[in-house]
Amino acid sequence: MEILRTVREMQARAEQFRLSGKRIGVVPTMGALHEGHTSLLSLARTRSDVVILTIFVNPTQFGPNEDYRRYPRDFERDEKLAREAGVDSIFRPDVEEMYPDGFQTYVVTEEVAQTFEGKIRPTHFRGVATVVAKLFHIIRPHVAVFGQKDAQQLFIIRAMVRDLNFDIELLTAPIVRESDGLARSSRNVYLGELERLNASSLYRSLAGAGELIGKGERDLRVVRDSILATLAAASPTLIDYVAFVDPATFREIDSLRGGDVLILLAARFGTTRLIDNLLVPLR
Amino acid sequence: MEILRTVREMQARAEQFRLSGKRIGVVPTMGALHEGHTSLLSLARTRSDVVILTIFVNPTQFGPNEDYRRYPRDFERDEKLAREAGVDSIFRPDVEEMYPDGFQTYVVTEEVAQTFEGKIRPTHFRGVATVVAKLFHIIRPHVAVFGQKDAQQLFIIRAMVRDLNFDIELLTAPIVRESDGLARSSRNVYLGELERLNASSLYRSLAGAGELIGKGERDLRVVRDSILATLAAASPTLIDYVAFVDPATFREIDSLRGGDVLILLAARFGTTRLIDNLLVPLR
Repeated sequence: MEILRTVREMQARAEQFRLSGKRIGVVPTMGALHEGHTSLLSLARTRSDVVILTIFVNPTQFGPNEDYRRYPRDFERDEKLAREAGVDSIFRPDVEEMYPDGFQTYVVTEEVAQTFEGKIRPTHFRGVATVVAKLFHIIRPHVAVFGQKDAQQLFIIRAMVRDLNFDIELLTAPIVRESDGLARSSRNVYLGELERLNASSLYRSLAGAGELIGKGERDLRVVRDSILATLAAASPTLIDYVAFVDPATFREIDSLRGGDVLILLAARFGTTRLIDNLLVPLR
Repeated sequence: MEILRTVREMQARAEQFRLSGKRIGVVPTMGALHEGHTSLLSLARTRSDVVILTIFVNPTQFGPNEDYRRYPRDFERDEKLAREAGVDSIFRPDVEEMYPDGFQTYVVTEEVAQTFEGKIRPTHFRGVATVVAKLFHIIRPHVAVFGQKDAQQLFIIRAMVRDLNFDIELLTAPIVRESDGLARSSRNVYLGELERLNASSLYRSLAGAGELIGKGERDLRVVRDSILATLAAASPTLIDYVAFVDPATFREIDSLRGGDVLILLAARFGTTRLIDNLLVPLR
């Protein structure tokens, strides 16, 4: 396993891989790897000859009052996990390498970046789309793998790939959860003991909503109330949103009729903001 | 020479070229080809094995009250000129092929897109950067050729290529002029007979400014006054701007000291808006 730190090195290595007919798979991350990430690496492994892991805590996707500085960083542990997952190359650039002086070009996805996470974190998706476009140009992957946990991010990257004609196949891996249902996230380490217990209410409320709909409930107010009741019992500091969207458009729906529904949650426990989601099929 | 109309066909053909080791050169245009364009094609020819011409009147770079609908289109003539210039493939997509329903991703260059042309045409450079990014993904060129006439556009594409890590070499070709100095432009056909005569004042004023500076004039007000006097004598409908910028930053300079100066002009004759520029070396 090799570790590359400059754009030039990475671009040259990727071109070698391509010219020798190798299929390149990339898994973009901010490091602080957990089992969610390793599941993405395993999926990439099955669909490509070469697996490249990128580790970059991307400053442009953090707002001014967010956790950029204290975001967990542990490269030694990440390197070990990457080796175990069969990664071929780690691309781990510095901030100055990715955003040199005079940097001013961004990729913006206009409609969907205004809602939900985008409403609360106004420059977040601009930062995500920009860094992913850069990584795609640097690595030229055939396949890129993203987790379903960041559902809106996934939708935006899919829109970007389609709208800007990136010739890249996107693969999605399901959310990996702790035994009590909490979605794995690098930010879970911020949670105090009690907050950690309460945070499982995110999944419990989603699972309960899925069950209700499965049993035939079609009144969104009833489903929403059940989610809010489960969350409220776990004393969140704030519930940012509970939303029901059409997974094909990411637009909010106002009734449960036909198609699937994607339920989105964002809430804070203590000072830690967590998100989760569940896709519920409607028969 | 082949003519390709879909993204899928063009992307497949480009991948074939790449895998067979051919160096791809692209010249993006809106058609209505003139000698400026054919000079770009000749330059591309000298630096690549395969020359691809794109012809697409890009709606996203026109403002609502601009000339999108009446922009000159003459594909038969363009095809003939392309054949004579040794073009291998023309990529000529429909608007629906490039901007299908739901399109919402744009590339924006923040700082420099606010000034000069960007001030007068607020969404212009967003449209240019977006379509060029799309064409780069569809064609995957090794080399792309742009004219010096659209100096600010060239600066923005250069910023985009650098900021987003496109692995593409940009080449620039000098402005091709009519015998009286008027820069070749597809929009020159809009000019009435008298307007056409008066429009040569753009170049005459630039050439006069270059001479003044060459003779040692270092007072920008004197240079600006000389340009304005030459232009005013030709009865323009409006002078949009006369600007002196540092070609390395595209920021306006307030004194002539060291480095080169790029002089930018935009003015209207009748209803036709024309731009021109001159790079003046400072000894």
